[in-house]
Formats: sequence, structure tokens, C-alpha cells
Amino acid sequence: MKKQLTIGLFGFGCVGTGLYEVLNKTTLLQASIKHIVIKDLSKKRIIDANYFSTDADRILDDEEINVVVELINDYEAAYEIVTKALKSGKHVVSANKKLIAYYLDELISLAKENQVSFLYEASVGGSIPIIRNLEEYYNNDSLSNINGIVNGTTNYILTKTGEGESFDEALKNAQDLGFAELDPTSDVDGFDAKYKLVLLLKHAFGFTAKQDAVWNYGIRQLKDWDATYAREKGLKIKLLAFGTRINNQVIGFVAPHLIPANHFAFNVENEFNAVVVEALFSDKQLFLGKGAGSHPTASAVLSDISALQFDYAYEYKKSKTEERLTFENDFSLKVYVSATTQEKLDEVEFADTLETYSGQSHSYKIGLIRYSEIQKMDWNAASEYFLAVVPDSVELDTKSILSASESTELIEELS
Amino acid sequence: MKKQLTIGLFGFGCVGTGLYEVLNKTTLLQASIKHIVIKDLSKKRIIDANYFSTDADRILDDEEINVVVELINDYEAAYEIVTKALKSGKHVVSANKKLIAYYLDELISLAKENQVSFLYEASVGGSIPIIRNLEEYYNNDSLSNINGIVNGTTNYILTKTGEGESFDEALKNAQDLGFAELDPTSDVDGFDAKYKLVLLLKHAFGFTAKQDAVWNYGIRQLKDWDATYAREKGLKIKLLAFGTRINNQVIGFVAPHLIPANHFAFNVENEFNAVVVEALFSDKQLFLGKGAGSHPTASAVLSDISALQFDYAYEYKKSKTEERLTFENDFSLKVYVSATTQEKLDEVEFADTLETYSGQSHSYKIGLIRYSEIQKMDWNAASEYFLAVVPDSVELDTKSILSASESTELIEELS
Ligand SMILES: NC(=O)c1ccc[n+]([C@@H]2O[C@H](COP(=O)([O-])OP(=O)(O)OC[C@H]3O[C@@H](n4cnc5c(N)ncnc54)[C@H](OP(=O)(O)O)[C@@H]3O)[C@@H](O)[C@H]2O)c1
Ligand SMILES: NC(=O)c1ccc[n+]([C@@H]2O[C@H](COP(=O)([O-])OP(=O)(O)OC[C@H]3O[C@@H](n4cnc5c(N)ncnc54)[C@H](OP(=O)(O)O)[C@@H]3O)[C@@H](O)[C@H]2O)c1
Repeated sequence: MKKQLTIGLFGFGCVGTGLYEVLNKTTLLQASIKHIVIKDLSKKRIIDANYFSTDADRILDDEEINVVVELINDYEAAYEIVTKALKSGKHVVSANKKLIAYYLDELISLAKENQVSFLYEASVGGSIPIIRNLEEYYNNDSLSNINGIVNGTTNYILTKTGEGESFDEALKNAQDLGFAELDPTSDVDGFDAKYKLVLLLKHAFGFTAKQDAVWNYGIRQLKDWDATYAREKGLKIKLLAFGTRINNQVIGFVAPHLIPANHFAFNVENEFNAVVVEALFSDKQLFLGKGAGSHPTASAVLSDISALQFDYAYEYKKSKTEERLTFENDFSLKVYVSATTQEKLDEVEFADTLETYSGQSHSYKIGLIRYSEIQKMDWNAASEYFLAVVPDSVELDTKSILSASESTELIEELS
Repeated sequence: MKKQLTIGLFGFGCVGTGLYEVLNKTTLLQASIKHIVIKDLSKKRIIDANYFSTDADRILDDEEINVVVELINDYEAAYEIVTKALKSGKHVVSANKKLIAYYLDELISLAKENQVSFLYEASVGGSIPIIRNLEEYYNNDSLSNINGIVNGTTNYILTKTGEGESFDEALKNAQDLGFAELDPTSDVDGFDAKYKLVLLLKHAFGFTAKQDAVWNYGIRQLKDWDATYAREKGLKIKLLAFGTRINNQVIGFVAPHLIPANHFAFNVENEFNAVVVEALFSDKQLFLGKGAGSHPTASAVLSDISALQFDYAYEYKKSKTEERLTFENDFSLKVYVSATTQEKLDEVEFADTLETYSGQSHSYKIGLIRYSEIQKMDWNAASEYFLAVVPDSVELDTKSILSASESTELIEELS
């Protein structure tokens, strides 16, 4: 059954180098890297220069190469590479969540048409085998919720702001340590988490969310007073990718959450990621691991390569059921919103107010806001505000978003 | 590829009934139960009496039945059933950790000889897909540690003692709620956890531990003062199945641990289970979910049945590597030991003492004890004492057991 895998590798940065090292140290796998395509030939590499070129066709036209591993940091160039590779009958392994979130159904079809596998475990949750488990383990179970800390950079920053650093300090330190990019937008404004959520929604519910339709709000506007509020209440602020399915409605967004101490994700700190899956039969399950880093991410890539030995392919079983799912925007969220002034706070339209605080430095309100109302503003750019979702129950009870007065209607409508 | 599965089911108790219900509600699986063998024909069942008999051969001799699902509570009867089923070329799915821990290698060989699958995901961690992940996901990664809360009954009791109930009260309540059996020995003295540890050691390291060789110490002797000590220090007492591999040495035991608030397992409460895997490349990973209960356990059984559609079998890849592993007894543990009197405490031979407390009601000591010393006493029966392992570092740092003065020698020896 096992076949020899000959790999053409695109990218030799953090993950690509990690893959090389990890492949070298494993004895059980019959796989070797034949050629590596990078962008800048003049860069120093840890291995022989003969491996490298900037010529994509050296891989794509090589018939001996049966596996393309795409580990570059440019999703448009990756689109060219991956589509060509699939069309030429090569299996593809990728860690590129942005590419996949943008072109999900197209890439899936292309792989299917060309009878090859397209695997991307490393693209969500780094080392956490979440896609594989959604595919393999829950394929006969009906999933209701998927929830995760899926961005290591923001989780690292939030760990530090939780310890008293300001957002700016924490970001700067993360950049100095190489945990955050010079332009941190993708991480800090929740785009990266959204791409991952799109993949999770696909494998959990069989639903393809247009990535434009998913609200992503990050942590750029987090103020010291928000961190202090959380600390004083014994809560933590975590950036969660949130997905739920209620009958044939799917809800999905990325936003900071104020989570209590007995929340499963409370202890998920620094660069760790975690995903919670809720299913009808198997109930709540948490998967936790390193969400980024050279070797952890490479280990997920390696695991995909290893699966190719046995012609493994995702089946997208949840996508095959008859149900037509729709993306839902009509619900309320219980949120904490802080603003630099009471006037600014009053501009936010709450459907129901539960708590208010007005002070010299800032004011805040806890209450229900309709999701459609939230989406009227670009929160990532709204520097006067910070918003965090408040789970209603002390546990990870995703029903909180629908449990208060305003939203009971929706539940009735749906059931 | 997919084949029709015709199931013969043994046992229709908690898990068997759950399986019936779960199978009925899933649409994606081509599997049906043809016959069910139970012990007591006179019991009322939730389905038609025609399904049932007490005649094992009605299943074992039926050529149409290609899958035997063994969900009975008697490991010796299960041995007869499972071996016969494997010999007659039927795939077997079982949740019976005691059976499997006792006859592991024999059952594996039998399945192999007869070219059938023997799957048992539900036997460890209930709904948590830990065996599957160890088999599939870590097969090219080198594992160093496996650590888990794998017994829901004791975790439930410890949750309650953590909240102030006495052990006896908590046990009684667990019994009243059906979480603990009338004879709680298997759970409370750590036998059940040990059976599961034996399976984990096999799939994680490729090592077959004789279940007699593994020390299992439970929570029967936990006193109120121990619970109070933990609470006052901000710690929790958790019963951990502990496995580590250092070069070619394997260490494994079951014992209560005093874990700090930032330990991954700190929030694993009630009937939840959790397993932490530490690997060379993918680093630390935690899997958390319902460790018991009708539907959660049945969901794991269902997942095994589903995998049979694709002729899935465990490969035990870790067992195939050349390395000869040995079970190690020569190391020190950092422990907390309390005793009803100072005299009793003084009878315990510590290699190194770090803290002592002597009081009116009880005394305790924290220090290093050689593992061989610990094993001289039957701690489960020693009502004057309670012992808990103290992890050295604030994280789940399994090296703690080897990090103190006494044990540095061992590390040097081994490396
Ligand atoms: N880093 C992580 O922890 C992590 C975790 C999960 C997923 N990922 C994903 O993994 C992928 C790689 O990330 P990384 O951190 O390894 O990136 P990186 O360190 O920035 O490396 C990117 C690599 O891609 C090469 N490259 C860029 N454009 C190219 C092109 N058009 N053709 C060929 N090669 C090109 C670069 O070449 P030069 O070396 O010549 O510059 C470099 O080797 C990304 O999709 C990322 O989102 C990363
Ligand atoms: N309960 C859990 O949450 C859980 C979790 C993980 C694993 N497991 C494992 O799953 C297995 C079943 O557990 P359970 O809780 O379902 O047990 P249970 O509720 O006590 O039911 C046991 C069933 O086995 C039947 N039985 C006993 N001896 C038999 C024999 N010789 N031949 C045929 N049937 C026999 C009984 O028949 P009658 O109905 O006629 O009495 C009963 O239906 C055990 O191995 C257990 O360790 C259980």
C-alpha cells in the first residue's frame, strides 16, 4: 500500500526549514525532498544550494515529484502554484489558510477532478490535529459548536496584557521576539483567525462561508482599562473564532471574549491554540497544542505527508448531507463595550442594557446588541471603543449568544 | 470501498443501549445490529425482545455478522467472546480496558493472524479520540510523555472533595448518582486508570507493560486535611495516569498528583477526562472530553465501527521500531505524604526531605522517595497515609520526577 513520496517544496522559511529538519529526523516515512523553490536565491540556507531554484516549473513539470508542499507566505502566488500542481496530478499539502479560505471550494473541486489529495492540517491550530479529527472522528456525529483560540500571536499578546503590559508594549515585544509580523494587521485584526474559522466551518458543518461574510474583530483597540476590568473580575480576554450551527443556520465570527476561570480555554496561554468541538453524542471536546512555530507546524505538515502514503484524502462528509445551510446574521450578542467617553458609548445602539459604568477615563456597558447593528461599524478601526463578547454561562455555553430576551424570538423561529 | 457492516452486539447496558440509540440517529453509516446477546433475558429492554438472546453462538456462528461489538462488564467472559470472534474472522470493537490490558499482545496477534481489525477507542478516555490520534497523528513523531485523567469516577469525587466534601460523602453521592459502582475498588484504587495507562503506553511508545508491574495508587485514603492542604495552596488533587519515556526506559504509574492552577488539567472537572501528549516535534497537546457516559462512550464505539467501513486497523507502528524498551523502576518521585501521626510519617523512608509539618490531627512531609521504596507498601490499604505526587515545575513538567538531587544520577546514567 505504501508508496514512495517525492516532494517538491515551495518555501523554505520558518515552516519549510522546520519540515526539512523534521523529515530528516523521522525514520518511519518514505519521503524525500527533491527540489525546493524559494523567492530569493541569494539568501543563505541551512542546506546545499543545489536544492534551490526560483523556477516553479522545476517542480511542477517534474513527473517524478508526486507531492507538492506549499509553504510560502504569498497567497496569490500560492494560488498559481497549488492550482497548477493539482491540475498536473500532484498531491498538495499546504499550510496557507489565507489561500484556502479564499479559494476553498475551487481547490476542493480541482483536487477531486484530478483525483489527488489536498491536505492542510497545519493551516489551522498549528500542531493540533483538528481538521483530521473533524474529518475522521466526528463524521457520524452531529456537531453544534466549534470554538477556538486559533491565532498564536494574539494569544501571546493577550497573555501579556493579562499580566499588565499595554497592548502596544505587548505587540512590540511580540514583534521583537518574532511572534508578530512588522505589519500585524492579519493577526491583530482577526483576519488570520477568520481564515481558519472558514476552514473549521467547512469541516465541522459542511458549510462554505464566504470569508467576506464573516465578521472579524481583533484586539488592536484593547485598552488598559479593559485588561484591568477582566483581571479584577477574574476573567481573561481571549480572541475566539466562534462557530455554531442551529438547525440549518450557521453563525460564525471572530471576536474577543471575556472568559471565566472555569472556561476550558482559560489556561490556554502564550502561543498555544485550542479548539473546542461540541457534538450531539460525544459532547464537548477540547484539543489543545502549539498553534505556531517551526517544528509544531512542520509536524502537522509531516502528518499530512505521511497520510499521503496511504492515499488519504478529506471526504467532506458533512458537505454531502442533503441539508441546505445558510449563514445567519439575525441574532443578538451579549457584549462588553468600553468607550473613551460616555457620549461615544451612547452612540452604540444596545437592544438591552444590563450594566453600565461611567468614569473619568472611560465608560463601559454590558448588554445585548444585535449582530446586524455591530456590523455597521468597522470596530478594528474604531479607536474609541473596545468590544468583547460575554459568554452568559460560566461554562463555554455558546447558547449565551442567543439566550437573552431579544434573542428568544430567534430560537423560537428556528426551532 | 465502503462495506455493509452487520453487527452482533454483546451487552446492552449503559454503553450498549447508548450505541443502539446513537446508531439509530446517524444517517451516514451503513451498519445495522442483527442480534444482541445479554446475560439476563428477563430484564426489560428498550427495543423488541426478538433482538435478544443469551446464546453467544447466535452471533459467533452467524456468517453474515462481520462485526462483533463487545460491551459487557465481565472481562473473563469477554475474553472468550473476543478471542472466538477474532478466530472466526470477525472484526471486533470493544470498550473493555480490563480485558485489553490483561491480554493485549495476545489479542493483537490474534487479530493480525486472522486479518481482522480489533479496535477499542472507547476503552480509554471515553469520547476522546486518543488511541486514534496516537496511531494516526503521531506515527512519525517521537513521544516522550503521556499523562492523563482517565477515570471519570475518581475525577468526579476529587471535584467534590476539592469543593469541601469528604471522600466518603463524595463517594456515596457518586454511587447514588450512578457515577460509581457499589464496589468502587476498580475506580477508587486506580485499577481502571492503570488498564487505560497500559493501552496508552502501547500506542504512545510501543511498549507492552504487564499490568501487574504498573503501580496503581488511588484516592481512597484521601483525608479532609489533604483536600484542605491543596485548597489552601491553590492546588488541586487529580488522579493521573503517568507515562514517560526516557531513551529506552519507560516509566508508568497511576497516582494522585497535586497540580497547580496553570496546569492544563486544572480545569478538568467532574466526569471529564483529559490526556496530554508530549512529542518531539508537535510539542505538548491536550485532548479533553467526556470520559464516560452512555452517549459519549457510544460515540467512540460508533467511530470505530465507522472506521471498519474502510477496513481500518491499528498498525502499532511504534511497536515496530527496533528499539528494545524496558520498564524502569529506579527513579525518585517528589511527593507529599500525610500521616495520622508523626510516628507513622517517620516510618516512611524519604531520600530527601524538603518540607515537614507536624500538627495535632496529622503530619505531612514533602520530599523525594525512591520509587522502589514506595512500592514496598500497599498504599491503597494503608489508611494512615495519603500520598500525592508533586510536579516540580508549575507547568506539566514531567521531568519533575527526575529533576531533584537524588535523581540527577539517573538522568546522567540514561543520557
Ligand atoms: N510560521 C508559523 O508558525 C506558521 C504556522 C501555521 C501556518 N503557517 C503558514 O505557513 C506558510 C509559511 O509560513 P512561514 O512562517 O514559513 O513563512 P516565512 O518564514 O515568511 O517563509 C516564506 C517562504 O516562502 C518563500 N516564498 C515567498 N514567495 C514565494 C514565491 N512566490 N515562490 C516561492 N517561494 C516563495 C520565501 O522565500 P525566501 O526564503 O527566498 O524569502 C520563504 O522561504 C504560510 O502560509 C503561513 O501562513 C505558518
Ligand atoms: N459506562 C461507561 O461510561 C463506560 C465508559 C467506557 C468504557 N466502558 C466499558 O464498556 C463496557 C460496558 O460497560 P457498561 O457500563 O455498559 O456496563 P453495564 O451497564 O453494566 O452493562 C453490561 C452489559 O453486559 C451484559 N453482560 C454481562 N455479562 C455478560 C455475558 N457473559 N454475556 C453477555 N452479556 C453480558 C449485561 O447483561 P444484562 O443486561 O442482561 O445484565 C449488560 O447488558 C465495560 O467494559 C466498561 O468498562 C463503560
